[in-house]
Amino acid sequence: MTTLDPPFAAPSLLDHVRPQALSLPESGIVEVMNYGRQREGMIPLWAGEGDLPTPAFIAEAATRSLAAGETFYTWQRGIPELRAAIARYMAGLYGVSEDPERYFVTGSGMQAIQIALALTLSAEEEIIIPSPAWPNAAAAAEVIGARPVYVPLAFDEARGFWIDLDRLESAVSPRTRVIFINTPANPTGFVASREALAGVLDIARRHGLWIVADEIYGRFYYEAGEGGRAPSFHDIMEQEDRILFVQTFSKNWAMTGWRLGWIESHPLLGDVLENLIQYSTSGVAAFMQRAGIVALERGESFVAHQIERARRGRDIVADGLATSNRVRFARPPGAFYMFFGVEGERDMRALALKLVDEARIGLAPGTAFGPGGESYIRMCFARGEAQMSEATNRLVDWLKR
Amino acid sequence: MTTLDPPFAAPSLLDHVRPQALSLPESGIVEVMNYGRQREGMIPLWAGEGDLPTPAFIAEAATRSLAAGETFYTWQRGIPELRAAIARYMAGLYGVSEDPERYFVTGSGMQAIQIALALTLSAEEEIIIPSPAWPNAAAAAEVIGARPVYVPLAFDEARGFWIDLDRLESAVSPRTRVIFINTPANPTGFVASREALAGVLDIARRHGLWIVADEIYGRFYYEAGEGGRAPSFHDIMEQEDRILFVQTFSKNWAMTGWRLGWIESHPLLGDVLENLIQYSTSGVAAFMQRAGIVALERGESFVAHQIERARRGRDIVADGLATSNRVRFARPPGAFYMFFGVEGERDMRALALKLVDEARIGLAPGTAFGPGGESYIRMCFARGEAQMSEATNRLVDWLKR
Repeated sequence: MTTLDPPFAAPSLLDHVRPQALSLPESGIVEVMNYGRQREGMIPLWAGEGDLPTPAFIAEAATRSLAAGETFYTWQRGIPELRAAIARYMAGLYGVSEDPERYFVTGSGMQAIQIALALTLSAEEEIIIPSPAWPNAAAAAEVIGARPVYVPLAFDEARGFWIDLDRLESAVSPRTRVIFINTPANPTGFVASREALAGVLDIARRHGLWIVADEIYGRFYYEAGEGGRAPSFHDIMEQEDRILFVQTFSKNWAMTGWRLGWIESHPLLGDVLENLIQYSTSGVAAFMQRAGIVALERGESFVAHQIERARRGRDIVADGLATSNRVRFARPPGAFYMFFGVEGERDMRALALKLVDEARIGLAPGTAFGPGGESYIRMCFARGEAQMSEATNRLVDWLKR
Repeated sequence: MTTLDPPFAAPSLLDHVRPQALSLPESGIVEVMNYGRQREGMIPLWAGEGDLPTPAFIAEAATRSLAAGETFYTWQRGIPELRAAIARYMAGLYGVSEDPERYFVTGSGMQAIQIALALTLSAEEEIIIPSPAWPNAAAAAEVIGARPVYVPLAFDEARGFWIDLDRLESAVSPRTRVIFINTPANPTGFVASREALAGVLDIARRHGLWIVADEIYGRFYYEAGEGGRAPSFHDIMEQEDRILFVQTFSKNWAMTGWRLGWIESHPLLGDVLENLIQYSTSGVAAFMQRAGIVALERGESFVAHQIERARRGRDIVADGLATSNRVRFARPPGAFYMFFGVEGERDMRALALKLVDEARIGLAPGTAFGPGGESYIRMCFARGEAQMSEATNRLVDWLKR
């Protein structure tokens, strides 16, 4: 291989990249992570993950499968045992009928979203996304050449964030195909009430739209009722409603690094989903899936522990921030992020980089979360008491400087 | 959740699936696999994988990483140690300069293709694919809404399959963006000569096209020369040529079930590739990548063993088929498939299903491999002598009935 002068090579290569790929935003979270990842003594609260590794009893299921030689191609939809385990878990949690044919294993919740969009959305069409929002769903739509249409969540300090159904409906255009609903929500902690979900479903039905439902934080819900989980489209939907659920093992079972999730859909879409899986990653390692089974079947006390920890983390951060008169926030009812504004700070990307340098805490700038997020910064509180207290102290001390 | 009558629900749901997703072909390979997968005594030669599980020394690297708690989010481009190991491996094999910034870890070779196409190809544009071909590249283009344009490989029994450059160039249209070249090729065993590759590159340069180079079978090359591997675009390209290489750990290291691969590109495309990875699966488990490092660094004798086994498999099958006067084939110079026609059999999908039932061997119908494949059937020969002999005997006996 020989080399031409880079000044000549450079423009030519990038000029030929598909415009939709070239214009994709760098993840504003990853930017800060890459900036601070290797600093001494950092408390990293930028990503949506805790500090606990995957429990050994889950990891060991993968190890046993590997040792047994489960290293060959497997079912594109997921191994039958995992699909059955997901069906039992979902029936227990949501009271839905136990049907393994509704579940399709994917290589992460992110891939579940990608595939859900590939099933529903073409170039030039639109997806409605309440915002601020985790940016990756919008970006996945942009890869397709589709257009995210953001609908700002309403906010007041008493109620926190909430969804304005009139505003949502007024965003529907002839090109709209999908409404993306994340509840409990990243980064805002917003949790849709059953009534709000019914309102969204009504809009989707009247306009003939799909709903892609991201309820991955459904267990991280700090209000009473609903059997220990947040309200869900499962509570109100009919079987033939056009709802695709995207899910992940990442949050409940501390498996962020695994890249393991699932799609839930009407079984009629099974052949289409199998094809979309086949033509994107061709399935998920069987030994990973064995770990998923054990997580679902034996992970409940770990999940309960994680939720309790997050609740304490939330309260530590909220109590700490309340001692500063520079912070604007509401105690989030769900998910595991504090999303707050800081008086006197307008450039949140710059603030995140400063907090890495000066307070040794890693937060994610609200600019990473689309329209409405610009004046906020996100702090993940899915960590143990000691770290959350230390991080809160560092933050509050820095704010008081 | 309540249920409406399926006869009413069914059309409504499928009617709202994106047409490009709905029209995707079922993999003709998966169809036969699903048909025969659980039969007693089958010799499964339908998929592109051997019978050896991943070597223990590779799997154990994943196990050690898991036990050490490497279960968190990691670098979207791949962990630096794996990118460095790939760079060393590629420098050794192809004599290219050792540059980790050229390599991007993906969740399978399939995902590498998906991402390469997302970088280069939009809806309504065209990708040229010599055919018969492994179907998944074309299908991945169809998911995007792009159009595969097939160019038939030429064939004669003396020479086997070969690429007709005039025919290739005449397929270029104003909408063409990509030429997809798989060499050594699945399913045909075709291997492009250095001169043929230079011809393809010349066409790509003159028309301003990308090449997506799938050289995953590069080690499975049974002719002398080129340092134990097939001719490669690496041998002739300039650094600024618009070539994206897609690669996988599947074949060389018996890791088909892992879903681990990489993209090789000019480092200038690094940010774009990182984004495309972020917004499709958000990276690959670090513990998987540890296994990849060990495969690259300590896997050479295993690779040599696999290649030698495949060569013997090829000769067993070819010698066996030569005893039947009903078979049309050439001894393939590369990859690990015998792609042959059978006199008197016109429906190759039906033949594949019959061979499951009546000969207990699993082959893949040529109909799965696009235009030009209809009168062929594919037999993978990446297995040990005993199984390949038994499978060949079953086939030849069945042919003589």
